[in-house]
Amino acid sequence: MSKSLSMLFTLVNKSNILGQIRYYASSALPQLSSEKYGIKRKHFSPLQQEDINYFKSIFKEGQVLTEESEVLPFNIDWIKNCRGQSKLILKPKSTEEVSKILAYCNEKRLAVCPQGGNTGLVGGSVPVFDEIVVNLALMNKINTLDELSGALVCEAGCILETLDDYVRERGLIMPIDLGAKGSCHIGGNVSTNAGGLRLLRYGNLHGCVMGVEAVKADGTIIDCLRTLKKDNTGYHLKHLFIGSEGTLGVVTKVAISCPSLPKAVSLGFFGLKSFENVLQLYKSAKSSLGEILSAFEMADNCAIKSTVENLKIPNPISDYPFYVLVETHGSDENHDNEKLTRFLSKEMESGLIIDGTITSEPAKMKNIWHLRESIAGAGLLDGYVFKYDVSIPLTNYYDIVLSLRKKLGDKVRNVYGYGHIGDGNIHINVTVPQYSKEIYSLLEPYIFEQVAKLNGSISAEHGVGFRKPQFIHYSKDASALQLMRELKRTMDPNGILNPYKVLPDV
Amino acid sequence: MSKSLSMLFTLVNKSNILGQIRYYASSALPQLSSEKYGIKRKHFSPLQQEDINYFKSIFKEGQVLTEESEVLPFNIDWIKNCRGQSKLILKPKSTEEVSKILAYCNEKRLAVCPQGGNTGLVGGSVPVFDEIVVNLALMNKINTLDELSGALVCEAGCILETLDDYVRERGLIMPIDLGAKGSCHIGGNVSTNAGGLRLLRYGNLHGCVMGVEAVKADGTIIDCLRTLKKDNTGYHLKHLFIGSEGTLGVVTKVAISCPSLPKAVSLGFFGLKSFENVLQLYKSAKSSLGEILSAFEMADNCAIKSTVENLKIPNPISDYPFYVLVETHGSDENHDNEKLTRFLSKEMESGLIIDGTITSEPAKMKNIWHLRESIAGAGLLDGYVFKYDVSIPLTNYYDIVLSLRKKLGDKVRNVYGYGHIGDGNIHINVTVPQYSKEIYSLLEPYIFEQVAKLNGSISAEHGVGFRKPQFIHYSKDASALQLMRELKRTMDPNGILNPYKVLPDV
Repeated sequence: MSKSLSMLFTLVNKSNILGQIRYYASSALPQLSSEKYGIKRKHFSPLQQEDINYFKSIFKEGQVLTEESEVLPFNIDWIKNCRGQSKLILKPKSTEEVSKILAYCNEKRLAVCPQGGNTGLVGGSVPVFDEIVVNLALMNKINTLDELSGALVCEAGCILETLDDYVRERGLIMPIDLGAKGSCHIGGNVSTNAGGLRLLRYGNLHGCVMGVEAVKADGTIIDCLRTLKKDNTGYHLKHLFIGSEGTLGVVTKVAISCPSLPKAVSLGFFGLKSFENVLQLYKSAKSSLGEILSAFEMADNCAIKSTVENLKIPNPISDYPFYVLVETHGSDENHDNEKLTRFLSKEMESGLIIDGTITSEPAKMKNIWHLRESIAGAGLLDGYVFKYDVSIPLTNYYDIVLSLRKKLGDKVRNVYGYGHIGDGNIHINVTVPQYSKEIYSLLEPYIFEQVAKLNGSISAEHGVGFRKPQFIHYSKDASALQLMRELKRTMDPNGILNPYKVLPDV
Repeated sequence: MSKSLSMLFTLVNKSNILGQIRYYASSALPQLSSEKYGIKRKHFSPLQQEDINYFKSIFKEGQVLTEESEVLPFNIDWIKNCRGQSKLILKPKSTEEVSKILAYCNEKRLAVCPQGGNTGLVGGSVPVFDEIVVNLALMNKINTLDELSGALVCEAGCILETLDDYVRERGLIMPIDLGAKGSCHIGGNVSTNAGGLRLLRYGNLHGCVMGVEAVKADGTIIDCLRTLKKDNTGYHLKHLFIGSEGTLGVVTKVAISCPSLPKAVSLGFFGLKSFENVLQLYKSAKSSLGEILSAFEMADNCAIKSTVENLKIPNPISDYPFYVLVETHGSDENHDNEKLTRFLSKEMESGLIIDGTITSEPAKMKNIWHLRESIAGAGLLDGYVFKYDVSIPLTNYYDIVLSLRKKLGDKVRNVYGYGHIGDGNIHINVTVPQYSKEIYSLLEPYIFEQVAKLNGSISAEHGVGFRKPQFIHYSKDASALQLMRELKRTMDPNGILNPYKVLPDV
């Protein structure tokens, strides 16, 4: 194993998304994004030795990486779809250091790629050309936690799982949970408006984030880091940084509202006959489980089968056309069990649930969640995965999978859908032995056209990043795009922040 | 009663906030805001007859009001604190009509004051000089409701209570509830980021609003009216219009996520010994009631006593230093009762609750809520009320009331505090026989200074409006204010939208 690949392997292996997947070590480097997608470099200044010298003069050892082998892992996204050519990685340790970097880069017209845990799926967190990577990993301090109100304040580089462990010990949980939790940063979650598994219950980040501290392109620190649930004093600036994928500013600190740790958690995993039954079961769960419902996830047969086969993860029940995972978070175990049992017996009797298992044992619940969360990575073992993440109103939620299967036939290995029914969010994976332009052109823009026809969103939770700017018009009209451009111009007039991302060229 | 006062009376009397309050009819018109607060008119064009002719040519009868008696009610806010001098009220019936109005006004440099139900408390919804009032009352259509996902789409002028009645009949509730529900518009709620009574449970509007359609100052329609819970396609523009109080655009349609109608609702009203006990009870309620807790409100003795005396509303329990209202929304009556009873017996035994009543009877619950919601208006019968709405971290939540009582002594009739403990949001009312500059100068900026010292917000949910721009710096630093100004310049370069509001003059 070459040194650089070994480092890359170490980097990606830290992520629990990948679990036992070991494919990185043996495979080749992905093609450069600029070549693969035919992108032209914009007129930013090229990095000079004097720039590197400047950063070395203000930072300590370990904060400025320039060796080829050191910078490589920061240039590649974890699904090996994108590769940039950055020659400089900066690892600031404070907001003031981020401010100094951006003020300098803005002055010198040097492009910057802000980077969190680099677990994104749309190439938003890796450079395209030689942008300077500003990686927030060393900004990982937890500042304060108010146990009565649930307000947590921490730096952007804190890993989501670390935060969740911390607040759990104090009777709270993080309001967000996703497969990449072992690697992703809270700053990245906020910058990409990450959704995840329990949005249904705890709401989205626009609702949960109480405050943000961010640095604008010119180095100005915007301090909106209050821990108040209500604060109507002027424009709600924090929302500019939630979901703008590092193109309007770099998030440096986050204040977030943590709900109470549920005293009782249960999980059901059910087999169903049809997608129509999945929707009927969702309606019934909303009514029967009410306020304790914390997740309602679905996966089709192929998604589960592939995961079981590729990753050797056991399926706790038999083979069914559709699977549903129902989770409850509540404050009284007896009450919750009663609700869940009543729901289960009613729906087994009605025939909506053909087979299933319910458990409150932590180890068993972990196994079921592991199966669900592993779907995202399992397809990579087929070779290459085209991944889509779209929102579609529920009635037509699953149509796209069926129409893709019909369209692609045996040109691909697998087409499967899984996702968060409660949020109208489906993930579609198309697996092939290796990346193929032919398949790519069959998929795009076809999928986006279909989603637009159904009034859906071409990116539900993964964002636009590098991969989707040219398709954003399927979800946003010309006036909205124009306003986005005006905001970008106002907040980053030289366009140094995360170029080639989010907004399409005019 | 003069014709104009009679019309004003009719207007305000529609609001159920005011309930039995009849003071308007007998009292004089409030002083002009410009005189009272010494404001200078900005360089907008004065309204010409040709402008009125233009609007009359494109609108139908009843949409263009110019008679002095007709325009008066639209010039005065309901707490009689502000009075503007508008000579033209426009009542558009569609987004396209709003667009036409703004395009014309922007072209002619005519200032505009967007207006919803005019229930605001900071003078944001009435003009200061001769701004043209664009009142949304005729845009009151409900467009669609998806009963499975809970997505409601409606026009901005829909009255909150009307919407709540509509969705309740279909198994859902509005995620927002506030005292002014009988008059306030959903567009106004969104524009001011209204908070209200159940934010604790159903979250804030940044979390619940799925989409917004708004018109920019130049007449451009921004269509972000999706009904998706997850949509990460570019900047999250809708948040620019949530809470910017009509200064960045006029909200014309709203898509909002409605939670399920709770199958069981209960209400407890308790007497407590001290504010410390209020906080301890909140902690206990969060733990014992968990996910069914839907409101946790507090009022001090003076707040309840004044309301009982001024409005002759009965207090269901005896006289106590503090009162707490605890509400539960759940899906199983037996489970909820068990939780609530357990909570009550535990805390009566512990001595936190001295006395109290619990009920699930709709009529009794309505009476208790009526008492709580009437506090806001009751003080007006003392003569004049200085009203403050601030957020303060919980430990110091009630300090400000004590320090004001000490400072003001017998110079005022009453000082009392009440509000939403779950949101750290306290309302402070100071009642006097009539408006007094001396009291005003004792209160402001003193209150804001105290709040700033405690890292609170000088406006929790009421907004900045006309009354607080000069105090916004107590909650926002220079960089944040600068960014707000840049956003205003970008989106409304001529400054025609709701001038004299939100942002202080440089």
